[in-house]
Amino acid sequence: MVTVYQWGSCDIGHRDDNFYRENVGFQPRVAQSFKENSNKNTLKYKEIECVINGEDSQKCRREAKEVYMPFSFIQKYFEVYGSIESYDGYERFEFQHSYSKVHPIPDQYSPGGIFMSFEFYNVEERNRVKCLTGQYGVPMSTQWTSTGHYYPIQIAQFGLSHYSKHLAGPKPKVQVLEDGESGDTSEWLLPDRRSQLAVKTDADFTDNSIIEFDTSENLKNPGITISMDEKKLSTLSLDIKFISNGSLTVLLRTGDGNLFRIHYVLGDTLIYLQKRDLYYGLGSKARGKWLHITRMVMVDFQKGLALSMSKSKVAKFKRNARIAAICLRGHGLVDNVTLSSAAHLEHFFDAANYLVNQQDDQGGWPIMVQRKLVPAVLELDAGWYSAMGQDAAERALDVFGIKSGDGGVLTKFAGVYDWYEEYPTTPSSYVLNGFIYSLLGLYDLKEVASGKGAEHATRLFEVGMKTLKNMLLMFDSGSGTFYDLRHLTLGGAPNRARWDYHTVHINQLNLLSLIDNDPLFTSTSKRWTDYMKGKLSPHN
Amino acid sequence: MVTVYQWGSCDIGHRDDNFYRENVGFQPRVAQSFKENSNKNTLKYKEIECVINGEDSQKCRREAKEVYMPFSFIQKYFEVYGSIESYDGYERFEFQHSYSKVHPIPDQYSPGGIFMSFEFYNVEERNRVKCLTGQYGVPMSTQWTSTGHYYPIQIAQFGLSHYSKHLAGPKPKVQVLEDGESGDTSEWLLPDRRSQLAVKTDADFTDNSIIEFDTSENLKNPGITISMDEKKLSTLSLDIKFISNGSLTVLLRTGDGNLFRIHYVLGDTLIYLQKRDLYYGLGSKARGKWLHITRMVMVDFQKGLALSMSKSKVAKFKRNARIAAICLRGHGLVDNVTLSSAAHLEHFFDAANYLVNQQDDQGGWPIMVQRKLVPAVLELDAGWYSAMGQDAAERALDVFGIKSGDGGVLTKFAGVYDWYEEYPTTPSSYVLNGFIYSLLGLYDLKEVASGKGAEHATRLFEVGMKTLKNMLLMFDSGSGTFYDLRHLTLGGAPNRARWDYHTVHINQLNLLSLIDNDPLFTSTSKRWTDYMKGKLSPHN
Repeated sequence: MVTVYQWGSCDIGHRDDNFYRENVGFQPRVAQSFKENSNKNTLKYKEIECVINGEDSQKCRREAKEVYMPFSFIQKYFEVYGSIESYDGYERFEFQHSYSKVHPIPDQYSPGGIFMSFEFYNVEERNRVKCLTGQYGVPMSTQWTSTGHYYPIQIAQFGLSHYSKHLAGPKPKVQVLEDGESGDTSEWLLPDRRSQLAVKTDADFTDNSIIEFDTSENLKNPGITISMDEKKLSTLSLDIKFISNGSLTVLLRTGDGNLFRIHYVLGDTLIYLQKRDLYYGLGSKARGKWLHITRMVMVDFQKGLALSMSKSKVAKFKRNARIAAICLRGHGLVDNVTLSSAAHLEHFFDAANYLVNQQDDQGGWPIMVQRKLVPAVLELDAGWYSAMGQDAAERALDVFGIKSGDGGVLTKFAGVYDWYEEYPTTPSSYVLNGFIYSLLGLYDLKEVASGKGAEHATRLFEVGMKTLKNMLLMFDSGSGTFYDLRHLTLGGAPNRARWDYHTVHINQLNLLSLIDNDPLFTSTSKRWTDYMKGKLSPHN
Repeated sequence: MVTVYQWGSCDIGHRDDNFYRENVGFQPRVAQSFKENSNKNTLKYKEIECVINGEDSQKCRREAKEVYMPFSFIQKYFEVYGSIESYDGYERFEFQHSYSKVHPIPDQYSPGGIFMSFEFYNVEERNRVKCLTGQYGVPMSTQWTSTGHYYPIQIAQFGLSHYSKHLAGPKPKVQVLEDGESGDTSEWLLPDRRSQLAVKTDADFTDNSIIEFDTSENLKNPGITISMDEKKLSTLSLDIKFISNGSLTVLLRTGDGNLFRIHYVLGDTLIYLQKRDLYYGLGSKARGKWLHITRMVMVDFQKGLALSMSKSKVAKFKRNARIAAICLRGHGLVDNVTLSSAAHLEHFFDAANYLVNQQDDQGGWPIMVQRKLVPAVLELDAGWYSAMGQDAAERALDVFGIKSGDGGVLTKFAGVYDWYEEYPTTPSSYVLNGFIYSLLGLYDLKEVASGKGAEHATRLFEVGMKTLKNMLLMFDSGSGTFYDLRHLTLGGAPNRARWDYHTVHINQLNLLSLIDNDPLFTSTSKRWTDYMKGKLSPHN
């Protein structure tokens, strides 16, 4: 006999055999024990109706005393996953409690090391990224607004992902197309007799040799061109200074044999597609300055196509495209033209430069979009800061001291515990992963900074860690985690974290356990990992 | 096609199609849609191994693209319930998410009305009740100590349950065996010539006529006896005053035709069984005083038998026993000897009198047993008070102002919110149902008291309600409730409330909604009720 329920180890109050009958009007049921029928040929298998909680009905199967329930029901009812998989010569049904996986815990945490598991992130490919802008080389987000905005958290993610890829990945393959050092410019094709190309010396570059080009700036002019047929090395980088108006074009050959042009032009156009011509603006103030441009050409291509066609079509075009030529127009100087398999560090610097240059007087990066966590309740007006975006520089720390109601990121749980908000709503939302990211940022800063900045970061970090230790288990649901504490501030349903955020929580605890040996982090991480296999916390 | 997962409505941060691949290394699976096989005779199925979370294995059934999982697994894995039930001419499988039921919400709350659903409680029959003591007529608890102790919460439950039964139940049937008014004592049998029985007048009783008895006090003497063969009216009550030593005996005829004696004796014996003689002590100071005794004879019989035999044997003996006679020994006075189907109000007064008389100088009822919520961590030394036991009288309110560390019941969550502890442990345990019971007690008191007592109760009630509104949803797990907040104070796993406590929480919220119209109580009650049918709170 298998008893359907079992008493826990903690005996409080009413527990006894009569409690059920008294309190609920009926006795808990006891299920029959089930015998495996060893003789398959005599199995009697028939349909039986299953009444679900006295309300719905499911067609099940019965075999002797065992009842079988269809997985199509189980999957939906219990939010679990499964599929038939074939390997080792036969088929199995693989049941999974969650769809997510926890990354292995690294040996140690270092501010200069790979960040979390960000080496697996491809931020720029996400649908919510409209494109990498020509002006800054950082993602333009369409989260919460279709017109696009610079979302500092996404830019930081972009930077950290490429930084982590740089550390984790193989050394990229690099092909220098032109650096002026050889003195030979015969690979370049001039479009007409008026066009010129010459090796020059420029004081801005230590190697001194650069290329001066001079041709029509008209986009109908093919420009001064270097040809190739390149598939794998699709990250283009170069230093360029336009003296007159001008442009840089990458010519692609698509799978159907047609040509497609990506034009990087002087001006404020973000991204613009006209048939087979795609335009990225390098900014209206780009003329007359040395620009260091790094473009993932296939990402630029993908984002352009996405303006007019379906995802699957885009993927097909992208898969079959090859770089056919690079063209220069107008009058200008160019150097260090390379194609490479990846240029992660350059993308990282694009992100870092953006964040350093765009920081405002208060030390933050206001997020210029209204954000509705709960429409009409947890809304943020445009111009909010986020604690997650504050981790780049010391002067960002001031925002941690300003209350979220006053334009900062600080809130106090129960008026007592300092919490740095990812979304500084009123009432507070207490998003866990954002808070821990801000703590990791503070930790990094206190480790790499010195003097007053380090002291400030240390103070904020320690206060935040104290809060985290007091509040961490408010996010423990006994079967998973909560994404935030909106239920406590709004009085509604708890917002359960879906499994991928649950694993982010676990990965974060694992990192924290490397920088703080409080057993709370290791024991909680273990339990939260168990939840992913359906192991619940005990009941009384 | 049924997508295995779905995005919630709240879009925060990383969500996009690449998140899975980047973060977890594989894509969520998509299950096939399943076709019902309409022809029962051709059910084609075969065994398929089901791998559970990559660890365990279950034998499942496969039928085309549908997989069926055995309920014996589902029940254990997901903690759900089910059984095959036969009605309306055919068998169904009844699946239940929980084993518990919520009582209907009453129309209004009244301090003088039925308390919660306590009319369904049979406190005295619980295994944890050693017996109803002869001295006070209230339960002696063996929770947490086998030697037994007066547990004021259990005594209050006992009183409230009989008070509620009195209001809810049918009018009891009462048979007066002797009140002296008829002047006829011929139903009594004298055991020997020296014994006497006479109608007397006594100033203590308004009806004036009482019975004086005088016989040997030796227990071997049968005593002065009135005979019967009574099954249904098994609650004996009488007023009695022993002038000499003496005893009251109830003679039972058991199903096997044997006789069994329950002796209520002067002395401190709690309960003592010797073969077919069972002894309950009425207290060493009982002699020379009028005693009002009310005994559920079959409960006394049950508790006595339970000292020496199994539960099932006890039940059988109890079921078949009948009252054969009532006997008096020694010299004394007796009046109002009745047998009735129930005497709920008398049991209620026994409990109320106990609580009023046993209150100590601090206004509380110290619980004289050590309590281990978590061995070696959440322990209580003997002598603790409980907020749940404080609801009988105004002077009990002082204990609400004393910190739990100082022998009172008050703790403060985050140093801010006043909480009245059912188990005033250090660190605090925050047992939800106990806290709400104490609030209901405070409400009752503020309603029925006047002057300073009412003001004091009102103040404590209002502070407590404010705390409850701020903390209630800390007990919401998104799929059920937590019994307490030990995880926040101890740093370990949350203690999920089993379904019967979950329904107590809901029943309590329903009562609170009658005395406070904050929508928090109704909306939370609704959601918590939904949890009992497997409806989870949303995820992000």
